[in-house]
Amino acid sequence: MPQIHRLDSRQADFRTRLDQLLAWESVSDEAVFTTVGDILADVRHRGDAAVLEYTARFDRLEKTAVAELEIPRDRLEQALTRIAPEHRQALERAAERVRRYAEHQKLSDWQYTEPDGTVLGQQVSPLDRVGLYVPGGKAAYPSSVIMNAIPAKVAGVPEVIMVVPTPDGQVNDLVLAAAAVAGVDRVFAIGGAQAVAALAYGTGTIPPVDKIVGPGNIYVATAKRMVFGTVGIDMVAGPSEILVVCDGLTDPHWIAADLFSQAEHDEDAQAILVSPDGDFLEAVAGAMDALLEHMPRAGIIRASLAARGALIRVRDLDEAVAVANHVAPEHLELSVAEPEAMARRIRHAGAIFLGRHTAEAVGDYCAGPNHVLPTSRTARFSSPLGVYDFQKRSSLIHCSAAGAADLGRTASVLARGEGLVAHACSAEYRIDPPVDDR
Amino acid sequence: MPQIHRLDSRQADFRTRLDQLLAWESVSDEAVFTTVGDILADVRHRGDAAVLEYTARFDRLEKTAVAELEIPRDRLEQALTRIAPEHRQALERAAERVRRYAEHQKLSDWQYTEPDGTVLGQQVSPLDRVGLYVPGGKAAYPSSVIMNAIPAKVAGVPEVIMVVPTPDGQVNDLVLAAAAVAGVDRVFAIGGAQAVAALAYGTGTIPPVDKIVGPGNIYVATAKRMVFGTVGIDMVAGPSEILVVCDGLTDPHWIAADLFSQAEHDEDAQAILVSPDGDFLEAVAGAMDALLEHMPRAGIIRASLAARGALIRVRDLDEAVAVANHVAPEHLELSVAEPEAMARRIRHAGAIFLGRHTAEAVGDYCAGPNHVLPTSRTARFSSPLGVYDFQKRSSLIHCSAAGAADLGRTASVLARGEGLVAHACSAEYRIDPPVDDR
Repeated sequence: MPQIHRLDSRQADFRTRLDQLLAWESVSDEAVFTTVGDILADVRHRGDAAVLEYTARFDRLEKTAVAELEIPRDRLEQALTRIAPEHRQALERAAERVRRYAEHQKLSDWQYTEPDGTVLGQQVSPLDRVGLYVPGGKAAYPSSVIMNAIPAKVAGVPEVIMVVPTPDGQVNDLVLAAAAVAGVDRVFAIGGAQAVAALAYGTGTIPPVDKIVGPGNIYVATAKRMVFGTVGIDMVAGPSEILVVCDGLTDPHWIAADLFSQAEHDEDAQAILVSPDGDFLEAVAGAMDALLEHMPRAGIIRASLAARGALIRVRDLDEAVAVANHVAPEHLELSVAEPEAMARRIRHAGAIFLGRHTAEAVGDYCAGPNHVLPTSRTARFSSPLGVYDFQKRSSLIHCSAAGAADLGRTASVLARGEGLVAHACSAEYRIDPPVDDR
Repeated sequence: MPQIHRLDSRQADFRTRLDQLLAWESVSDEAVFTTVGDILADVRHRGDAAVLEYTARFDRLEKTAVAELEIPRDRLEQALTRIAPEHRQALERAAERVRRYAEHQKLSDWQYTEPDGTVLGQQVSPLDRVGLYVPGGKAAYPSSVIMNAIPAKVAGVPEVIMVVPTPDGQVNDLVLAAAAVAGVDRVFAIGGAQAVAALAYGTGTIPPVDKIVGPGNIYVATAKRMVFGTVGIDMVAGPSEILVVCDGLTDPHWIAADLFSQAEHDEDAQAILVSPDGDFLEAVAGAMDALLEHMPRAGIIRASLAARGALIRVRDLDEAVAVANHVAPEHLELSVAEPEAMARRIRHAGAIFLGRHTAEAVGDYCAGPNHVLPTSRTARFSSPLGVYDFQKRSSLIHCSAAGAADLGRTASVLARGEGLVAHACSAEYRIDPPVDDR
């Protein structure tokens, strides 16, 4: 049987052991910071020339101009015709469902008028230009292109620029096809910290963007952190996680596969099963054992279960809910008889999968909701990637003459209370008749 | 006349000069990082004892327990009775208006059902516990307490914990009164990086929060950046900014006061006036000269105008809109004849003040919209602080048996395309009849 932690909420040190299991901190060491800082500064100052040099050095691609690294729209459309028809169909279906769900997330303008004619409101605008980082090589996931680009296009972002490294010129047709399906506007075959720098600062050829989203390795993640402020970034993702709550009545093989579907991502991924039924927990352990031999990524699964996986026995389903809220998992599966009632008691989770039939994997690809979700307990304070991440709000204040006079008096009192006389003066000018101390 | 930059869009180097004027980067030097890192680690490991030691050292407050640093609710209510009645009335009015505007921002749940019975949706929850940092001493602004705490309470956050340093035991009654009015739940008289650490990690006495908001000095800002990930944070604010677009028909004294109301914040603040009317620009310069002698903070105003202020002459109001969108200012005043039409063409601004009567200062205190706004061109990708910053979303996916089978097929194709067989397997288990290759 695969090695996995076994916890029981009746243990005196349960919470301590659970917290030890959850603890995870990404570490960018000094060397990574220095390397990335140098690349960012270099691209910022030398632009295209620096991008060409780093691409030659890291991806072994020798070009004389960054324009040669642009993958034209034709090439994306061509990829769509090259991939297997079933892949194309699946990508198009996933894109359509993700788009339909995203439409529900659009923010809109609103305003209201007060009795004295003062109008207050909020105006929503899309970002002008967004950069999407897509990892190259083995970790190239077309689903990631769809999940990141579509919400931006639904938000109304006029220009989505994708960067994807193509080491030794190796191009992934599924990724290019996904870019075509998702409506990506331009694609450059660059990667690493140099791609993040190019998007953040712009170069002669690559226009600067307003926000950079998408997953990447430690260099990419560090570069995103360092350019934050110059541009917006999405959250820096930790390892993938799933927490399954089960009453013990779902087929143990289904649950085993669900746990594996996160465990196979990488050695740091976390798969946790919580149930009041101790026999069921062992049945799932047995099912995992049987299933493991069919898994091409068995080595990764074994390592992640041994390091961070857990079978947790709780007293009852109420306690399972408490554990789920404490863990605030990226993916939460409620494999129970009445999942809606339980979901209403969940305060913290990236995505909630209700019922025995809802495999987490459909959420990764095609159910509709985004697969970019808060990890490492950050669901306590953050949300799935969505259309709202590509829109922003401006407050609107339009005072009538009467409103300006009325509000001006209140503002004047508070401004003087804070010792800010210019603020007071600016408000008082709009009070009619003028106040004495002006 | 106060020294101020004069730019003209007809100058060949206009954009370069404008960008030089806008450039601003906060620098936390190595020493600040090291000091803050040490304090964070110390509070994380030693909890209350470390908080007591730093408070004794930095605020000269010797206590034997952190509980003695808690300012009880009674004391807040007492402050409300101690301050001048006009201050109390102004605070209560501001709070009521901020609350009313914030109510419009609340996110809500939604879901939709597909023909095969699959339900997709989004569930919104408030954060469990929020920390609010309030600077002590001279920069103690009661308006900041209202602007940060009220959106959290409107979002439904059960517990808002405020920290405010009280150097030498010096307490600001206006700040405590504002906390009472805003519904802050608990207040601790601590500050600096140690307060941020206590909120992020929790101590024996101070419970850990899920997000930390509010302004602070460079140590506080650096500490917030460093605990980001463990908790959420609001944006790290740069210097305050105003950009006024005027057609030349507003009283120059009004505009001069509006520019001063940002310039008086600090030497790095930025006040810019854009107009097609060159004579008007000089009339405002003259009005500034006359007004300056009445300003208690004239020294700060002079310094900020000389360093970062500008009078910009443009060809016409269309060009003024283009300049405003490039600058993406924190505060944008449209002091023109038809401000609504112009506001619709603004893509990037924290808050837009429409019309000649709307002084930016009413927005700082009592108009309703939040005064915590994106600075340093970050309005290109971020929004005012709002209720939505204290709520988060969880995706909901509930597949019917038919939906699970249908979506499972699509997920399986895409998962196998990405080489993730456990994902495919987990989806395929829900396909009925079972597929052959399972």
